[in-house]
Amino acid sequence: MNQFVSVTEDILQKLVRIVGRRHVITSSSAEMEDYSHDEAPTALRHFPEVVVKPDTTEAISEVLRLANTAHIAVTPRGGGTGLSGGAVPLYGGIVLSLERLNRIQEIDEDNFVAVTQAGVLLQDLRREVERRGLYYPVYPGEGTAHIGGNVATNAGGMRAVTYGVTRNFVLGIEAVLASGQIIRSGGKFVKCSTAYDLAPLLIGSEGTLAVITEITLRLIAKLPAWHLLYIPFTSLHKAIEAVPRILKLNVPLVGLEFLEQDVVRIIEAYLERAIPYHENPAFLMAILEGRGEEDLNDAARSIAEVCIASGAEDVYIPMGARAKRDLFEVREKVYPALKSARPIEVLDVVVPRSRIADFVGEVKQLSAHYGIPVIASGHAGDGNVHLHVMGKGIDTIKWQTHLPDLLKDIYRAGVAMGGMISGEHGLGSEKKSYLPLAIPEEQIDLMKRMRQAFDPNGILNPRKVFPD
Amino acid sequence: MNQFVSVTEDILQKLVRIVGRRHVITSSSAEMEDYSHDEAPTALRHFPEVVVKPDTTEAISEVLRLANTAHIAVTPRGGGTGLSGGAVPLYGGIVLSLERLNRIQEIDEDNFVAVTQAGVLLQDLRREVERRGLYYPVYPGEGTAHIGGNVATNAGGMRAVTYGVTRNFVLGIEAVLASGQIIRSGGKFVKCSTAYDLAPLLIGSEGTLAVITEITLRLIAKLPAWHLLYIPFTSLHKAIEAVPRILKLNVPLVGLEFLEQDVVRIIEAYLERAIPYHENPAFLMAILEGRGEEDLNDAARSIAEVCIASGAEDVYIPMGARAKRDLFEVREKVYPALKSARPIEVLDVVVPRSRIADFVGEVKQLSAHYGIPVIASGHAGDGNVHLHVMGKGIDTIKWQTHLPDLLKDIYRAGVAMGGMISGEHGLGSEKKSYLPLAIPEEQIDLMKRMRQAFDPNGILNPRKVFPD
Repeated sequence: MNQFVSVTEDILQKLVRIVGRRHVITSSSAEMEDYSHDEAPTALRHFPEVVVKPDTTEAISEVLRLANTAHIAVTPRGGGTGLSGGAVPLYGGIVLSLERLNRIQEIDEDNFVAVTQAGVLLQDLRREVERRGLYYPVYPGEGTAHIGGNVATNAGGMRAVTYGVTRNFVLGIEAVLASGQIIRSGGKFVKCSTAYDLAPLLIGSEGTLAVITEITLRLIAKLPAWHLLYIPFTSLHKAIEAVPRILKLNVPLVGLEFLEQDVVRIIEAYLERAIPYHENPAFLMAILEGRGEEDLNDAARSIAEVCIASGAEDVYIPMGARAKRDLFEVREKVYPALKSARPIEVLDVVVPRSRIADFVGEVKQLSAHYGIPVIASGHAGDGNVHLHVMGKGIDTIKWQTHLPDLLKDIYRAGVAMGGMISGEHGLGSEKKSYLPLAIPEEQIDLMKRMRQAFDPNGILNPRKVFPD
Repeated sequence: MNQFVSVTEDILQKLVRIVGRRHVITSSSAEMEDYSHDEAPTALRHFPEVVVKPDTTEAISEVLRLANTAHIAVTPRGGGTGLSGGAVPLYGGIVLSLERLNRIQEIDEDNFVAVTQAGVLLQDLRREVERRGLYYPVYPGEGTAHIGGNVATNAGGMRAVTYGVTRNFVLGIEAVLASGQIIRSGGKFVKCSTAYDLAPLLIGSEGTLAVITEITLRLIAKLPAWHLLYIPFTSLHKAIEAVPRILKLNVPLVGLEFLEQDVVRIIEAYLERAIPYHENPAFLMAILEGRGEEDLNDAARSIAEVCIASGAEDVYIPMGARAKRDLFEVREKVYPALKSARPIEVLDVVVPRSRIADFVGEVKQLSAHYGIPVIASGHAGDGNVHLHVMGKGIDTIKWQTHLPDLLKDIYRAGVAMGGMISGEHGLGSEKKSYLPLAIPEEQIDLMKRMRQAFDPNGILNPRKVFPD
């Protein structure tokens, strides 16, 4: 275990000199509370000793050099919208907030590239890119997330079927090592075979290797048309079984989501309006994007036929812009609605997409076995299953006793089907202890050696990702 | 510098026990010559002490454990089609040939995934995948390359405009560390945020971190239609200037190549037939793929209009299957044809695609300045410029004196435009000395520390990628 040093008055003065008095928060401030947690439902709060908000890569480099020399823990923080406790400063120390690194440096329409600082909000980036007729299609849902946080967790979302995840759009990264050294990897090109590509390693490393400061993103041309299909089924099993059949159609499907009735009911309560077909036990939602309405109509027809043949009750395609937006909002609000219902755990296991029906079936059996309700929803088209473990109405002693076993059994089931612990949320502090269920100790040791190559003193986001 | 030990009679016996007498070649064999070089025009030959050909991951693990304990250099070798000397055993030692790891383990039509051993030939993989109506679109040209070698160099090729490069299709990797430890990263899913993703780091690492044994590849549905456009221009500058205008059309363009007349003449000599429009000084070749002929006709028309407006002499779209194949062969044979003309250097600088005209212009000036001819061709659509330095008719003393300066100036020009030394060939032994022109020493040191985390004794492909 690393030994860290507390932030002294002397260090504080030096931090103030680097970033300016206004951009340093100390424990006397009420504002500090915001920096003690992220959006994980389970993570304990933990206050930092100081929050610093540099606005240049050079200032970040200075802060890190200072912290590294003094052996102070540093927790990098993006938008704080993470779901795994990755931004919680478990050791106190310094929270390094990227919020002032909020400039889109360039949208390069010749190279179809955006160069952006890490602290830009995803919704701002998307708006600026779309204003120029271009498109950044990765859609993790939470618009107030920082693009840097998206990169640090390899965020995914609901358009991964065609487009993939954050990883698939990052062309280059600028980052700062714990030592203060600034590194750059990749650039405005898709081809590179010039020594090790560090950028893909930093993607998903959750702030444990370096502080990501600037990202070069690949953009694509915006497809002008999109369709939404909402498909009620007579059982969850039938809904999920339709998924591989839909995927085999080879239509321009960018997202394919599934919802249980329980989730729909919770969203109805959250949005305070009824959702069509809510009497059905399960639903698929398909998102299509294309060059023209005609292609999409053909695609929608094929999907509808396959779904009806697989036991769908009906296929609803909202035609009005308002109805379409309302329905899309249903999927967008899954997480906040479920959050309002206070789940006791949120899991985001990924399995090969052909195994989703098996996996959800096994989860339901485990849920029944332990007597703890688990609601499933998520990205059927890419195998990323979101499981919300609900605690309402269950006695506390029961779930405290059995929850760890339930979670382990769920993770083991996913891994046994060729899956992984987390598809897009990361491990942070909340899921790190499950890593050995998926990756052998020897390989975890290799990762720790890699970390040491980046950060010999282990000051960056300590006690995250790897089990204690 | 690492100290390596020679292969003793005792080690040889142990190697024979692991892989079998028939699969060990010693220096007494004439077959050994094949393993002393790759296809780099400049690399010196160097014989290994022994070639071993294991056919399982476990046997590779045993060979490496043995070599690591004894401190013997190991050079992993795929198809030997590399262009940078990456497979040349500079220290002698063991050449670990992957040629018997040649099984396609699975083509999973539900998950659109192929699982293949590293030693499968690209052409065999492509054929098997296409037999099932699926598609692996990365097209580096050389069908006898191993897919493992493609991964180790992050091979690109001529369909990168839409599809990207090898990196964009690798979902998972199994590899063996120098210690014999077998590691696995990724799997049959596109989303993952579960500790560090090792697979993307191994991609492009040229055998210096681990021996790649098995790869899980993403496949896509094969698009049924393709078109080829061949566009003669009145100058190279005009041809290249048309590129960003074509790319902005947002048509389903998978490749956009450029050729100089010198290259066309060399290909004519190599193929022993005339190529249409050969009297023109420069050409673009566009490859389109789509769902139907109609879409492609529209796209072809748009490209033709833009090109004519940019100074194209004509736009030729071969209609017959034979004419189309003949023309496609022109691009496919660029490298073998140029090779037959005995270039003294082959470069594959990558720059942001908007900078290609500037870059090629600067290369031509440098070529004139040093009096050494440089022929340009390559992937205009993705910024990857292939430069063949020709020695014919120049006196040897002159090019021996000035060649290093010319190369450095070319690399500096590319890097100054935001590019990199190699887009797809890798650094191997032949380009490693130029790495410091693109990447600061401090960052190279970080890479060396990473290497040490994987291979503490440095036995894997020593003296490659990094300058001596």
